[in-house]
Amino acid sequence: MSSKVKTISPAEFFAANRIIAGFTNPAKSLFTSIRELIENGLDAAEEAGRLPYIRIRLRRLDSSELDKIIGITEKIKKSLRGLRKKGAENDSKKREEETVAEFYELIVSDNGIGMSYKDIPILMGKVLTSTKYVLRQQRGRFGLGGKMVIIYSIQETNAPVEIYSARKEDDFVSHYILKIDLVKNEPIIIKSEKIPKKKFRDPWCKKFDSGTIIKVYLLGNWSGAKNNILKYLQQLAVITPYATFIFEDPTGGIHVFERATNKMPKPPQITKYHPSGIDTQTLIELLKSTKAKTIRDFLTKELQRVGKKTAEKFLEIVDIDPLTPVSKIRKNDRLVSRIVEVARKFEFLSPDPSCLSPIGPELLEAGIRKIFKPEFVYVVQRKPFSYGGHPMIVEVGIAYGGDISPGIHLYRFANRIPLLYKERSDVSWKVIEEIDWGHYKIQKDSSPLAVFVSVVSTRIPFPETSKDFIDDIDILRKEIKLGLQEALRKLREHIRKKEKIQRRLRKKMLLFQYTGALVRSVSSILRTDEKYEDSPYALDDVLYAMLVEIVDRSVSEELIKKESSSESLNIGEAD
Amino acid sequence: MSSKVKTISPAEFFAANRIIAGFTNPAKSLFTSIRELIENGLDAAEEAGRLPYIRIRLRRLDSSELDKIIGITEKIKKSLRGLRKKGAENDSKKREEETVAEFYELIVSDNGIGMSYKDIPILMGKVLTSTKYVLRQQRGRFGLGGKMVIIYSIQETNAPVEIYSARKEDDFVSHYILKIDLVKNEPIIIKSEKIPKKKFRDPWCKKFDSGTIIKVYLLGNWSGAKNNILKYLQQLAVITPYATFIFEDPTGGIHVFERATNKMPKPPQITKYHPSGIDTQTLIELLKSTKAKTIRDFLTKELQRVGKKTAEKFLEIVDIDPLTPVSKIRKNDRLVSRIVEVARKFEFLSPDPSCLSPIGPELLEAGIRKIFKPEFVYVVQRKPFSYGGHPMIVEVGIAYGGDISPGIHLYRFANRIPLLYKERSDVSWKVIEEIDWGHYKIQKDSSPLAVFVSVVSTRIPFPETSKDFIDDIDILRKEIKLGLQEALRKLREHIRKKEKIQRRLRKKMLLFQYTGALVRSVSSILRTDEKYEDSPYALDDVLYAMLVEIVDRSVSEELIKKESSSESLNIGEAD
Repeated sequence: MSSKVKTISPAEFFAANRIIAGFTNPAKSLFTSIRELIENGLDAAEEAGRLPYIRIRLRRLDSSELDKIIGITEKIKKSLRGLRKKGAENDSKKREEETVAEFYELIVSDNGIGMSYKDIPILMGKVLTSTKYVLRQQRGRFGLGGKMVIIYSIQETNAPVEIYSARKEDDFVSHYILKIDLVKNEPIIIKSEKIPKKKFRDPWCKKFDSGTIIKVYLLGNWSGAKNNILKYLQQLAVITPYATFIFEDPTGGIHVFERATNKMPKPPQITKYHPSGIDTQTLIELLKSTKAKTIRDFLTKELQRVGKKTAEKFLEIVDIDPLTPVSKIRKNDRLVSRIVEVARKFEFLSPDPSCLSPIGPELLEAGIRKIFKPEFVYVVQRKPFSYGGHPMIVEVGIAYGGDISPGIHLYRFANRIPLLYKERSDVSWKVIEEIDWGHYKIQKDSSPLAVFVSVVSTRIPFPETSKDFIDDIDILRKEIKLGLQEALRKLREHIRKKEKIQRRLRKKMLLFQYTGALVRSVSSILRTDEKYEDSPYALDDVLYAMLVEIVDRSVSEELIKKESSSESLNIGEAD
Repeated sequence: MSSKVKTISPAEFFAANRIIAGFTNPAKSLFTSIRELIENGLDAAEEAGRLPYIRIRLRRLDSSELDKIIGITEKIKKSLRGLRKKGAENDSKKREEETVAEFYELIVSDNGIGMSYKDIPILMGKVLTSTKYVLRQQRGRFGLGGKMVIIYSIQETNAPVEIYSARKEDDFVSHYILKIDLVKNEPIIIKSEKIPKKKFRDPWCKKFDSGTIIKVYLLGNWSGAKNNILKYLQQLAVITPYATFIFEDPTGGIHVFERATNKMPKPPQITKYHPSGIDTQTLIELLKSTKAKTIRDFLTKELQRVGKKTAEKFLEIVDIDPLTPVSKIRKNDRLVSRIVEVARKFEFLSPDPSCLSPIGPELLEAGIRKIFKPEFVYVVQRKPFSYGGHPMIVEVGIAYGGDISPGIHLYRFANRIPLLYKERSDVSWKVIEEIDWGHYKIQKDSSPLAVFVSVVSTRIPFPETSKDFIDDIDILRKEIKLGLQEALRKLREHIRKKEKIQRRLRKKMLLFQYTGALVRSVSSILRTDEKYEDSPYALDDVLYAMLVEIVDRSVSEELIKKESSSESLNIGEAD
């Protein structure tokens, strides 16, 4: 009966439930830390309208750093080895374990917009504070990214994090060393200073004009995380071909993904809510903050796709006078819920897709070519559509041959970040299963084919918390399928042409095999003529060359005829 | 460049990310709402030491309620139908849709400990406030349960929730009508009063002495949620056989799960942290709040399994003087992280399992018998073990025949709540795949077998946010497998005995088939004797009875001999 009510801070909540944000074990946590900081860097560069340049360095701590940062001296290491030996007699698993856990230093630097000196503590040291709480196509999953990395870091190492950030308009670099007080959800500032830009060099001894550098210490597991980190970077390079990524791994390997283009897609725009997807509490907040006086003016000003006429027609159905004051609506529970319920059914214009930022066929093709060097690429962008009051755009690309290994490989992107897990549950996988591959001259197990599906929206329909895969929604599946079918038809044309060329080559090879025998018999006949007696070899060569030319020309002509007739067949074909 | 820093409240965060807590679509949200409120009710009853009695009523709103609560009048309905007709011409899907979304009233009542009048607003109207933020075996997933139901309810309906709560020691029932202000993360109290217990009747017109009744309005989808809700209740009845659940569904169906026993397992106890699983920030908080002066006293007082000797041995390895003041440790980052790192490796006694509350073989068997009425049940409780500084206990049960349909059915429980999703990823499914079923006389597709795996711990190793399945950890898999094998050996004995009885019955049947013919031929010989001439039928009956007795006795004796020899074979058998 002694139960006491306790309030915890959001920082404490997320620290205790860090698996929500992908911090499950040292390997996954290492992967998540890297991806969160990279995605923050991309956002910051794009906000500045700059081609992103992201450097990542992951380094295992050496003995002196373990001592300095984690407090593990050589003496303690020796004692731990002693402990381990005793345990090892009982348990063979223990023998394989490291004496000390693996600790890493992670540095991620971007050339983004940077943070102001004043904002850094609150942006990096306080949970649920962000510049990103707006309605927009966003990479982020919960707007927590960077701070969860910091929370994980201090939970496991108790070492502070270090942040350098510079804005173009300042002549200094802001430098902070800080922790987060989880109980208070407040930053603990250990050091803060402004360093003149002239004096500052980044960790690679380069000048630093604008961007952010963050350095954290992490409990990690490189061998467990390696595959996913590299896969992630490769796929990020495909969907962000205008960015350069340089990753230095803990073994000294340097993975460079140089940008494939200097063109950037236009950035996603902040947008207003569409009436058909709004909930009652969001509506109430908008009613509170609006400057509109009447409900009609409110609808046209604060929501998208509502003109004066639409507003009046809508208000007629909800049975509310267009001139009703906003404050009166807000205070009436029934009117608020009525507006939301009717808006779900009313046919407004579809949500405006112009706020979205798909990568675009040209750039996606550049990304695919850069990474896979395929013999054939085709990318389709489908027309925008809407789901639950949110606009959505689907792009589908395929690549064939080159560095692609045999089989069908699916690459999925949501708001331009790669989805690595639970492929089989994804709507795109359902489409892959529905396709009649033979129809497109694809052998499922042996054709070297990569399929790319990119979905952008102000709300991606993830059915699960983990946000690993996109829900199987009818309209979305249909759009992906139509895009894929269009691309596959183009691929089939390519494969047909290629097959014809191969057939032609095979035919030539066959005829050439007989050419030698023919030359010899003709030459033996001719040589009975004295005219040719003196130069038997030259005669053979001349004959050989003549025959090759005849064969070559005849086979080519024959094929050109066939090809044009089959092309015309192709045009009339229904798909 | 006009980015502004914005802070949101945790209530806003969870409202916007409600899929974290299982509110994805109307069907899943309905299921989640019911399960969260039921589990809160179970916790409250168990905290009071009472046999839980949980009533749930789900009712679809009728026209007058839709008007009163959602503001949808008949006039608006008519207008909406007009809208629908126009749309229906274009889209066949729309025709199937309802005019108005499905809204429900959900009432869940428990006989638990109740809340004080003063605490209700903060416990029900403010996120991240709870009496459950302690280290203990807990049902809850994020300590958010009830409040997320309220947030979902007001998001979709804008209707307030109603709460009645009574404590045994008070003579009144606290009554609140409230909403949550998501932006402020504060309750909005619409009405609050104390109703004398004498005057109060619960929704079923019963007296109400202690417990909580909560009534919310929900956007839902009964046909989509039905299967999971009923499956959940059935499984909850198995693992909580001392509770009564009565569920009234929206079609008028009443599902009663009467308690199968009056015995309750002892409740889970609040426990101290074990040193091997603690993180640096938790250690710092303990160092701040402790009354201990020296680090040695701190270790023995605030952590479990650390006596004076262990503390001194541990401190020798971490190279810290046992008499160092706690405040000095707390302020030294390196010493804190060193203690955490060495504690991971140091061999403390395993975490104390006495704080755990497994259901126990007797009660689990009662639950299984009640629900499945099987011909055979066997339950094994394995010895406690530990993982990552947390104690863990595994119980495995099997049931055979009765209401179980052919095939192997797995039922999984984590801290005594059913896990319904992602079975194939669960450690228990891995075990099922490893078992050589033929060895235990089980046909995988046709034997009617149910396997029950219950895991309790102060931390269940869920690898994913959604907490749908338990991670495949070596020690856990081994324990489940050993438990299952033990139970299956018992089942094999049962099946063997049953087979023998069946063989015996078959043999009898066979002999009996010949008995008739034998009787007839003997009787026809005897009837030539005049002595028997008068009563041929009576003679047949007497003969028949005599022969049956002879057959019966001989077959039984033969089998008893065989059986005892095969039993002795069984004993020597290696498994």
